[in-house]
Amino acid sequence: MALNVYLAGEIHSNWRDEIAAGCEGLDVVFSGPVTDHAASDDCGVAIMGPEENKFWHDHKGAKLNAIRTRHDLAAADVVVVRFGDKYKQWNAAFDAGQAAALGKSLIVLHGADHQHALKEVDAAALAVVEHPAQVAQILRYVLKGQLPT
Amino acid sequence: MALNVYLAGEIHSNWRDEIAAGCEGLDVVFSGPVTDHAASDDCGVAIMGPEENKFWHDHKGAKLNAIRTRHDLAAADVVVVRFGDKYKQWNAAFDAGQAAALGKSLIVLHGADHQHALKEVDAAALAVVEHPAQVAQILRYVLKGQLPT
Amino acid sequence: MALNVYLAGEIHSNWRDEIAAGCEGLDVVFSGPVTDHAASDDCGVAIMGPEENKFWHDHKGAKLNAIRTRHDLAAADVVVVRFGDKYKQWNAAFDAGQAAALGKSLIVLHGADHQHALKEVDAAALAVVEHPAQVAQILRYVLKGQLPT
Amino acid sequence: MALNVYLAGEIHSNWRDEIAAGCEGLDVVFSGPVTDHAASDDCGVAIMGPEENKFWHDHKGAKLNAIRTRHDLAAADVVVVRFGDKYKQWNAAFDAGQAAALGKSLIVLHGADHQHALKEVDAAALAVVEHPAQVAQILRYVLKGQLPT
Amino acid sequence: MALNVYLAGEIHSNWRDEIAAGCEGLDVVFSGPVTDHAASDDCGVAIMGPEENKFWHDHKGAKLNAIRTRHDLAAADVVVVRFGDKYKQWNAAFDAGQAAALGKSLIVLHGADHQHALKEVDAAALAVVEHPAQVAQILRYVLKGQLPT
Amino acid sequence: MALNVYLAGEIHSNWRDEIAAGCEGLDVVFSGPVTDHAASDDCGVAIMGPEENKFWHDHKGAKLNAIRTRHDLAAADVVVVRFGDKYKQWNAAFDAGQAAALGKSLIVLHGADHQHALKEVDAAALAVVEHPAQVAQILRYVLKGQLPT
Amino acid sequence: MALNVYLAGEIHSNWRDEIAAGCEGLDVVFSGPVTDHAASDDCGVAIMGPEENKFWHDHKGAKLNAIRTRHDLAAADVVVVRFGDKYKQWNAAFDAGQAAALGKSLIVLHGADHQHALKEVDAAALAVVEHPAQVAQILRYVLKGQLPT
Amino acid sequence: MALNVYLAGEIHSNWRDEIAAGCEGLDVVFSGPVTDHAASDDCGVAIMGPEENKFWHDHKGAKLNAIRTRHDLAAADVVVVRFGDKYKQWNAAFDAGQAAALGKSLIVLHGADHQHALKEVDAAALAVVEHPAQVAQILRYVLKGQLPT
Repeated sequence: MALNVYLAGEIHSNWRDEIAAGCEGLDVVFSGPVTDHAASDDCGVAIMGPEENKFWHDHKGAKLNAIRTRHDLAAADVVVVRFGDKYKQWNAAFDAGQAAALGKSLIVLHGADHQHALKEVDAAALAVVEHPAQVAQILRYVLKGQLPT
Repeated sequence: MALNVYLAGEIHSNWRDEIAAGCEGLDVVFSGPVTDHAASDDCGVAIMGPEENKFWHDHKGAKLNAIRTRHDLAAADVVVVRFGDKYKQWNAAFDAGQAAALGKSLIVLHGADHQHALKEVDAAALAVVEHPAQVAQILRYVLKGQLPT
Repeated sequence: MALNVYLAGEIHSNWRDEIAAGCEGLDVVFSGPVTDHAASDDCGVAIMGPEENKFWHDHKGAKLNAIRTRHDLAAADVVVVRFGDKYKQWNAAFDAGQAAALGKSLIVLHGADHQHALKEVDAAALAVVEHPAQVAQILRYVLKGQLPT
Repeated sequence: MALNVYLAGEIHSNWRDEIAAGCEGLDVVFSGPVTDHAASDDCGVAIMGPEENKFWHDHKGAKLNAIRTRHDLAAADVVVVRFGDKYKQWNAAFDAGQAAALGKSLIVLHGADHQHALKEVDAAALAVVEHPAQVAQILRYVLKGQLPT
Repeated sequence: MALNVYLAGEIHSNWRDEIAAGCEGLDVVFSGPVTDHAASDDCGVAIMGPEENKFWHDHKGAKLNAIRTRHDLAAADVVVVRFGDKYKQWNAAFDAGQAAALGKSLIVLHGADHQHALKEVDAAALAVVEHPAQVAQILRYVLKGQLPT
Repeated sequence: MALNVYLAGEIHSNWRDEIAAGCEGLDVVFSGPVTDHAASDDCGVAIMGPEENKFWHDHKGAKLNAIRTRHDLAAADVVVVRFGDKYKQWNAAFDAGQAAALGKSLIVLHGADHQHALKEVDAAALAVVEHPAQVAQILRYVLKGQLPT
Repeated sequence: MALNVYLAGEIHSNWRDEIAAGCEGLDVVFSGPVTDHAASDDCGVAIMGPEENKFWHDHKGAKLNAIRTRHDLAAADVVVVRFGDKYKQWNAAFDAGQAAALGKSLIVLHGADHQHALKEVDAAALAVVEHPAQVAQILRYVLKGQLPT
Repeated sequence: MALNVYLAGEIHSNWRDEIAAGCEGLDVVFSGPVTDHAASDDCGVAIMGPEENKFWHDHKGAKLNAIRTRHDLAAADVVVVRFGDKYKQWNAAFDAGQAAALGKSLIVLHGADHQHALKEVDAAALAVVEHPAQVAQILRYVLKGQLPT
């Protein structure tokens, strides 16, 4: 048994590395968005030419990123969505909505202060946790039946 | 030709009424979430009994609301998502993600200040507008081929 | 907004009538299995001829009942599954499994004593209640946004 | 030709090993639930923290187990469901319902005393047998065209 | 509850009328192929011009008939397939295969002499009967729960 | 039996009216794109504001038209695509591709001079004709079994 | 590029071997039914116990064979169906119907004398040929773009 | 992460080679139509025998090509469609329509002079570019997050 796990959401902390470290030895393949913030914002105009209007600048970039996101979400067995402390993070909730509608197993990762604001997202999830280490523990249990000691 | 239109997102202004007023005479059926904020928050415990833990209080309510949302999203031809000025509104982005994954025609409604934060959502939409009246104009054009004068 | 609601499970008490009574005035269409126990058991041989072997006697009947169940499950927006006090009721759990896999909104109705045995079924549900009246309250809230007073 | 076979249901006897032994040399990959009963019951609280209410204790665990079950059921070509002598086993019937709705080839394994109670489940199956060895014989025939001698 | 029932197969006896007569008072809508044999054979060339080659003559007609068949099969809840005594009737078996793959409830109608040759078709059916009156009895039971007296 | 028929392609002749006239008395509901060429080109900027760049001007309009097209294609039982004498008409072929992938019954309408260039489109169709009257004859045959006299 | 090719139909001549021989060097994986006629007829009772009634004898066997057929049809890119000179061969037409409804590329193989009786099956096919060697030529062209010399 | 990329459209220039060259070192598998124009036109009659009527000559060939196209489109993650300067190229737009309806990520490649005629196709795309090198840059960004320097 192997799992494809997509790690969506916050790109400003090393939570993806923490999960990967906790999954050592497991048959898991991780995927996720481009985490180079500048490249992610400017990819569209860098490849397809500049736009005067900020809306179209962002539009061209967001669509290139969608090629990656759609592929990885569709290929995923489990989608983990992390809500951090900064920014609006509507993109994270948007990814969670796609994952839910595609019938993926959803794990949501956020601090207690966001609990009420995320209740609809949490209600669609199979697990809600606060720490990346717990995601790794869940994946280990799902794959191996082993609980943390 | 008739359209089912789900109006997702912000529940603290009368934007749904504005759209409905602008669609007078069109063959459109609107649906949307329960807009009584208190009822929406407490429906779970009101019907199924109290919870000490706020997480489960919210969880029971969010799942009842999901019965309505899932039904209406699945039945919709067009999903309009409004992002207002207050609150986190992750629920709105979550609904937009579901609509996108279900292949619904998505119209996003937000002010210019949210443009960058919503670029991934906008990139999945067939129209991005600032005012409810524009949504009505779009629906009139789609149904009747008539443009605003 | 209207809802198709399939009432699965126990056929030895009048819980279906209780729910219907509680939904007076709502735009709900109910469906359910044939509740005449003898007819349900013997329909196959009554129409298609007798069988010496009890397995095939039951097999022919169960398949005729499946024509009805599959149609109604597929057409349902909400599936309510009632687990009573008697019998094995594997059929109820089987219907719940079909409903879950078809992405239907699932409401489970059972007494507290069955809680542990039904945890997997409950985990797939959007609501778990003990009394038929609560199902009616849920449907009223979903359709009208009104809570019990 | 290779087959993915999910072995659902009873976790208190070694029937899974019997089937595996009978399939030696065949290109079959088996999967199944976590069979450590205590871990399966307590995984949710062990990873995500304790609950006072037994319902939520079980709920958190059942949802983690669902991550595994849904993945394995979706990946399976054949689903074998075993009903043993003890417990309610609604989970087994729930898995069978999911398998049927997903269009999987279903094999049901139970003793003659459960025949009438399982008639709807049996009616959805492509084979109903009493002994694990028969499941292995079926898989060998399906893959190699060889019958038991 | 209403049923769409497609009556496939033999077009040289009045079995469709027998079933319709037996369903008087039931909420059933019947559909079926064009039963005017000559029109069915020649429709392609009559509308789209003659062909010298018999293969293309038949090809053009069979495709026009497919417009009707595909629509009606897709809309059907129940598909009844009748195998008569004459001709090869591969078309009937072809319709049965489509119905099975689309997950429709399949009822097969044939005489005892065709039993062995039709075993794979019968194995995919929810009912196998010899007489049109039995089909009507099944539809009455499915819709009303009433057995023949 | 009723049919939803989408009439795609050329908007510069009255072929849609010819088909409708030929279908008098039949239970057919026709749909199609906005045929006011100027409105179709400029709808995006008329409602959502001007664009300096012609690409985005067209982009905004094409997406509004897609709301209509996607809805009507999805709702159609039969899609008729007309290739006229003028323009590139890539849009017509694009609609035909969508119809084919969605499993719709496709009827292609074009003159003999386009035969070779349209061979892949024709190969996916259930009928290829030269005159609108033939489309009406096909729909009459499909619905009523009547051939032209 | 690789192709999974299911070879359905006649089991009394060596046409499968002819096709395989003609595909030497191509990246094709063939599958097909159990071609040991006696095993295919008796597999059900050999593994699951005897039946007095021939209908149930055949029924149990046909369902075991369906485990194989459904798996292989679902996994196939191309389905080749051969109609021979003997027997009713309704099973072949049934497989063709399933293949068509599943959207598989269908190739039909039969002699000229069956042309009229198979017109509906042929109309759903992407190729109709008389000789197994032609099937191999088609597969070589599809995979390599090479035509017979 | 790996990508299957189908390269549809123009077969008279070496644009496919340019893209492949630009993707050196990436985990991309390319597919596309048979680019030997004569073989593509005549494959049907070469294998299945001559036709007097040009329509059927082309029809037989187009259907063989469809076996390849459908397989490759269904297997693709990304579909690139190139519109060149010559011919009608309805086939390219037809492939784009199929790709859009199948939910594939679509990249369109054409010169500025075709902008208006292709606006509906472009509106369904995630990227519109003029040069093959840009396609390679997009694939590199999607797979590796690296932008051209």
